[in-house]
Amino acid sequence: MSLTVVGSIAFDSVRTPFGERERMLGGTSVHFSLAARFFTEVRPVGPVGDDFGDAELDVLASRGIVVEDIERVAGGKSFFWRGRYEYDLNVAHTEDTQLGVFGDFEPKLSDASKAADVLFLANIQPDLQRRVRAQCTEARFYALDSMNLWIDTARDSLLAAISEVDCVIVNDAEIRQLTGESNLARAARAVMSMGPRAVVAKQGEYGAALFTENGFFALPGFPLEDVADPTGAGDSFAGGFLGSIDSHEGEIDDACLRRAMGYGTVLASFNVEEFGTERVARLTREEIDERFELLREMTNFEVLPASAK
Amino acid sequence: MSLTVVGSIAFDSVRTPFGERERMLGGTSVHFSLAARFFTEVRPVGPVGDDFGDAELDVLASRGIVVEDIERVAGGKSFFWRGRYEYDLNVAHTEDTQLGVFGDFEPKLSDASKAADVLFLANIQPDLQRRVRAQCTEARFYALDSMNLWIDTARDSLLAAISEVDCVIVNDAEIRQLTGESNLARAARAVMSMGPRAVVAKQGEYGAALFTENGFFALPGFPLEDVADPTGAGDSFAGGFLGSIDSHEGEIDDACLRRAMGYGTVLASFNVEEFGTERVARLTREEIDERFELLREMTNFEVLPASAK
Repeated sequence: MSLTVVGSIAFDSVRTPFGERERMLGGTSVHFSLAARFFTEVRPVGPVGDDFGDAELDVLASRGIVVEDIERVAGGKSFFWRGRYEYDLNVAHTEDTQLGVFGDFEPKLSDASKAADVLFLANIQPDLQRRVRAQCTEARFYALDSMNLWIDTARDSLLAAISEVDCVIVNDAEIRQLTGESNLARAARAVMSMGPRAVVAKQGEYGAALFTENGFFALPGFPLEDVADPTGAGDSFAGGFLGSIDSHEGEIDDACLRRAMGYGTVLASFNVEEFGTERVARLTREEIDERFELLREMTNFEVLPASAK
Repeated sequence: MSLTVVGSIAFDSVRTPFGERERMLGGTSVHFSLAARFFTEVRPVGPVGDDFGDAELDVLASRGIVVEDIERVAGGKSFFWRGRYEYDLNVAHTEDTQLGVFGDFEPKLSDASKAADVLFLANIQPDLQRRVRAQCTEARFYALDSMNLWIDTARDSLLAAISEVDCVIVNDAEIRQLTGESNLARAARAVMSMGPRAVVAKQGEYGAALFTENGFFALPGFPLEDVADPTGAGDSFAGGFLGSIDSHEGEIDDACLRRAMGYGTVLASFNVEEFGTERVARLTREEIDERFELLREMTNFEVLPASAK
């Protein structure tokens, strides 16, 4: 079992009503990899600049994430994002984005990365997603994320990329925008008609919904009284989701996908408890499994006693 | 078992991208009563005008709803609401509201209505809610709904009303507004600290969440590909929720409340499939139970075969 992810490795400066941090380790691949690593071998692919030091690399390497496809570009600068969140943490404002070495990124996959069992094409330009997809031919499950920017500026490429994966994991507003269909169930069916057999609609604090040919499944966000920083929650969700799928030996059926939704929800919930990677970087598998059981009880019509609290 | 509801009985003129209707039977008490009647005896209390004819009354009476506390005010006009929904049905615009006889409403409960086992104080002025509450002393479960208008204009009265009920059923934005707390779990706990032992946060298409002393439960909205008119969905939810609770003979524990959340979700889902009361007025208990089972399967981590589709 191994999972390859292609996406940003970045520094994030974030301000929320509960604090702020300058140039934290961040980016989709980072949040994704830290989450997925609890379940399987993970190989992030992507460029960083000279400003990305051994300390940053060690956050990943010390968790056993395979960092050999993280390419340090001499003289370059890492992807940088600055954002702030309102008192209502659902409202985020991007204040600065600097692509840095990510602007000229041409993915180069090692043989080991090409041989992944599961591939996640994080939110990058769709033609890049397709070039990675073409190199990675042996996976049993392909998934991609995208965003409004690519729906607006590279729609045809994005549709082609979608047709080449098994699963699309995007925000529900983006599914609506992509399909021009305001009804989510119809919009998800429209995406599935393009090729994927599963659509995951991320819904922020409301949780996430899974559409497959066989049915529908939804989980609420795990209820937390203390949320410090939502940055990377969706990426941690995808990491828990695909990591769980990669660790599953049998058929990737609806039961497997539902369990993966649960792990995605749990990893996202830990992510937001502290800033950046702070919480997930010291998370344990025991904490994950405990919260997974709580989530199962919280969504069960029959109330279990004791630990349901 | 019997359930008394105090709230509007109205005519609604509604336009959505899928059609429009003039002066349909509507109002909170109407949607609520039609939904709750599948589970228990229901007594709506409230005024109507001369314009409310036998045909309207018969929609309720023919379903076995006890209409003796619907007071026809000679020379008066019924509550009237006109609204339209955008292509995104989550966005509604009120174009006209005429209180009519509801403007001078002073609730008069018959002895039978006073003797209710469950009381629902729908969204009316909080002092009125309290006067009804004071007349109805034998219920084993009291619930209320409210709205931003009363939070802004009658906050102290509303807080007093809340302290006198077991359960608050409101939109999640209103729980946040009421408590000044953007985190929903904290906001719900703040409401519970005022007295209620349960808080239901209605979340529109995302479903609803239940907070109790013992835990948390959430259900997604039932996924529908065809939604015609969201008007009354929240009231149908409350009707299914409290009707189910009233029909429960044992202790009103978390299992009872969770099952009630399921019935609320199911009734709301039928409500929105057609305009106004059209769908629920000809709904059957068999259809309700079938969808309840689907909902249970859709929220279960273990996939059941066959009917999960």
